[in-house]
Amino acid sequence: MADQAAAGVRGREDGREDVPINVGLLGAGTVGSQTARLLVEQGDELTNRIGRPIRLSGVACRNPSDVDYPWLDKALLTEDTEAVVRGADIAVELIGGLEPARTLVLQALNAGTSVVTANKALLAKFGPELYRAAAAHHADIYFEAAVGGAIPFIRPLRESLSGDRVDSVLGILNGTTNYILDEMTTKGLDFDVALKDAQEKGYAEADPTGDVEGIDAANKAAIVASLAFHTDIGIDDVAVEGITRITSDDIAAATAEGKVVKLLAVVENGEAGVSARVYPALIPLDHPLASVRGSFNAAFVHAEAADDLMFYGRGAGGAPTASAVVGDVVTVARHIAQGSTGQAIELYNDLPKAPLSASQAVFAVRFQICDRPGILAKISQKFADYGLSINGINQDLQPTPHDPGYSGEIQTLRLVTHHCNEVTLRECIKDICDFSFVVGEPSILRVME
Amino acid sequence: MADQAAAGVRGREDGREDVPINVGLLGAGTVGSQTARLLVEQGDELTNRIGRPIRLSGVACRNPSDVDYPWLDKALLTEDTEAVVRGADIAVELIGGLEPARTLVLQALNAGTSVVTANKALLAKFGPELYRAAAAHHADIYFEAAVGGAIPFIRPLRESLSGDRVDSVLGILNGTTNYILDEMTTKGLDFDVALKDAQEKGYAEADPTGDVEGIDAANKAAIVASLAFHTDIGIDDVAVEGITRITSDDIAAATAEGKVVKLLAVVENGEAGVSARVYPALIPLDHPLASVRGSFNAAFVHAEAADDLMFYGRGAGGAPTASAVVGDVVTVARHIAQGSTGQAIELYNDLPKAPLSASQAVFAVRFQICDRPGILAKISQKFADYGLSINGINQDLQPTPHDPGYSGEIQTLRLVTHHCNEVTLRECIKDICDFSFVVGEPSILRVME
Repeated sequence: MADQAAAGVRGREDGREDVPINVGLLGAGTVGSQTARLLVEQGDELTNRIGRPIRLSGVACRNPSDVDYPWLDKALLTEDTEAVVRGADIAVELIGGLEPARTLVLQALNAGTSVVTANKALLAKFGPELYRAAAAHHADIYFEAAVGGAIPFIRPLRESLSGDRVDSVLGILNGTTNYILDEMTTKGLDFDVALKDAQEKGYAEADPTGDVEGIDAANKAAIVASLAFHTDIGIDDVAVEGITRITSDDIAAATAEGKVVKLLAVVENGEAGVSARVYPALIPLDHPLASVRGSFNAAFVHAEAADDLMFYGRGAGGAPTASAVVGDVVTVARHIAQGSTGQAIELYNDLPKAPLSASQAVFAVRFQICDRPGILAKISQKFADYGLSINGINQDLQPTPHDPGYSGEIQTLRLVTHHCNEVTLRECIKDICDFSFVVGEPSILRVME
Repeated sequence: MADQAAAGVRGREDGREDVPINVGLLGAGTVGSQTARLLVEQGDELTNRIGRPIRLSGVACRNPSDVDYPWLDKALLTEDTEAVVRGADIAVELIGGLEPARTLVLQALNAGTSVVTANKALLAKFGPELYRAAAAHHADIYFEAAVGGAIPFIRPLRESLSGDRVDSVLGILNGTTNYILDEMTTKGLDFDVALKDAQEKGYAEADPTGDVEGIDAANKAAIVASLAFHTDIGIDDVAVEGITRITSDDIAAATAEGKVVKLLAVVENGEAGVSARVYPALIPLDHPLASVRGSFNAAFVHAEAADDLMFYGRGAGGAPTASAVVGDVVTVARHIAQGSTGQAIELYNDLPKAPLSASQAVFAVRFQICDRPGILAKISQKFADYGLSINGINQDLQPTPHDPGYSGEIQTLRLVTHHCNEVTLRECIKDICDFSFVVGEPSILRVME
């Protein structure tokens, strides 16, 4: 089949209405197989929408003999990724990871072949290089599925909001962590138990690091920030905190206050510059993001003129992600049929990046302490020494059994700050942790105001 | 200024990077003035995004001498709408209503001038004619602001979801009625009081008919249905019910059941064909649409592969609507700079329209009755006669004072049906209303399952 793909009629140049546009798929996993299904099953409808037929010209995967879908002609399967790229008018990269994805995508773009990809890690690391290659060779690069799965969010950001000024995007962009936090909230589970449950149900991978440590969300934050602010913001610019330290105590305290804990990807254009961060935060229950349950994703946007917007939908899964991939394929195919391309992604702003030292917020801090007289006074004094003011404090009188090494009663002390500088707060907390009455690691959560 | 507009350099043909693209505004009201502001204030940013400068070339309005905005050069103001169209590369129609909007838009399109409009009534009535004119003359017609104000929804429907099959859209697409229902729910107000409050606060017009009778939402439903199903569905195809008959009793009963009343625009592609309807419905509190509060709008989409999606934001207001208008202007300007156009809107499917007789749903029906023995038996028997089954029934023992002409005690009888045929149910209810113990008009609300 490699030869068939490589020799496929390239429909772009001649512009004849009946010449099919060749789509080459790299990857035949969950998303790849569903993408193939939509392309095949909806072929007539897609032809109507594009004005020219679309043809699956090749599918590259590691073990072609293991792939068996009723809608997929086995003759299209090959191990030869480069042949699939060469035979395509549109190369759809669904391999994931940095290599060989980067090489293959660049190979396509440098040959003027448009690319559709769902690869967030690739774009968060090498986005600007790929955007430049696409522009230089008059090829399209579309990647709706890389952020928020099925949710049409990247395109509104690139196009619909192009007459406005985006101030911030708050995203729930990782379904695994949202599912885990949701289970912890509704069932009172501890993190470890909820994670195991998510793994058993297929919502979390065997190695959940990329999800629970916030790296997946951070990749998406980098992509979103670059597009929203037209500034090169890569994965290395994103400060990341995951959810592994969230305890059922944190969740219970949040619930008691009418709040919910969500892992947020936050990109902002503030006074100190642009920033992209991932952290767990306490959100009031009446905020639209609070109702994003289970494995759903959402992006909450504030723009100067549009005010508040939210985009909501399935952030993962084969068919939903394939919906976004095929939507991009149709757009690119229309451009090919027209002999045009979409607007190139140009990161023409070089906005300063806000230093972490500029980070300001309200924080909820939880310490575990061995209860003794005078502890509250010592902690309060430390806050005063650092010029930090406390908005509320709550000492839980129930013993908590979290440190098996301590035989006495461990209690939970929880306080909420006023709006304060994050670096100062962390220094203050580090000092407090030097007190012998503090047990284990404190939890520090941002509070959405 | 009319001459200046008419004589404005037409930038399209020569493609020089420094030749501005002329934007002519028809209308200088709330949205028009904010559109002008964004075009002027964000000029440099827009130039970056388009690759060519954009220039406000003329603003037509009824009384130029009354218009005074700090960002608007008064020399651009004119009464001469046709001159503004002639001088524009992009004509932005914000006059509203059918005429002269239709004539002006056709004039533009027939001359190959692209159009951006926020005019839902125009599109719901004459959409196919305008889409054909645009395609025939290689001009764009974009109208993000016509449905859901600032929410990027039309474009995802036209583009992002073009690789999927949309089954249904449930929209809260009228902010006025959503605000009124919200006030009735949270404050226990009667419809008349809530309407008056909305008028005083500027959320409802002096003549609220178009909003409260559902006509505004119906226009939007027609536009959405046409795009979602690629089938010509006009305003005359939309069955409409407004919210004027909703009482505080209906709201209280909904609240007691954990539901909320919303005016929905519903477009569906079902077994009996495609349909577009507007009606008030009972929605469970945990549905994402239930949390759409106040004057916000949202569209909840179900597509075959993408599954559930929701788009949320401000459905009205000068700046939010202008954000959508300018987003469209930027897209069209990019096309002009590229010498291309966007994909034409082709209603290539001619799907059958589902007859009202095919409408099936669960209904909540409320009668006001003069309580006498045997009433329940008589009503139940009527339902049985029509082959309709009742899922639950509730007789309110508190006297309700809704009919001042009746001196006895009037009670409320409320029942919820099983899934049933709407026409049959309405015939049954008509029969029941012939009983002398029934007072006034019953309320019939769909229940979302």
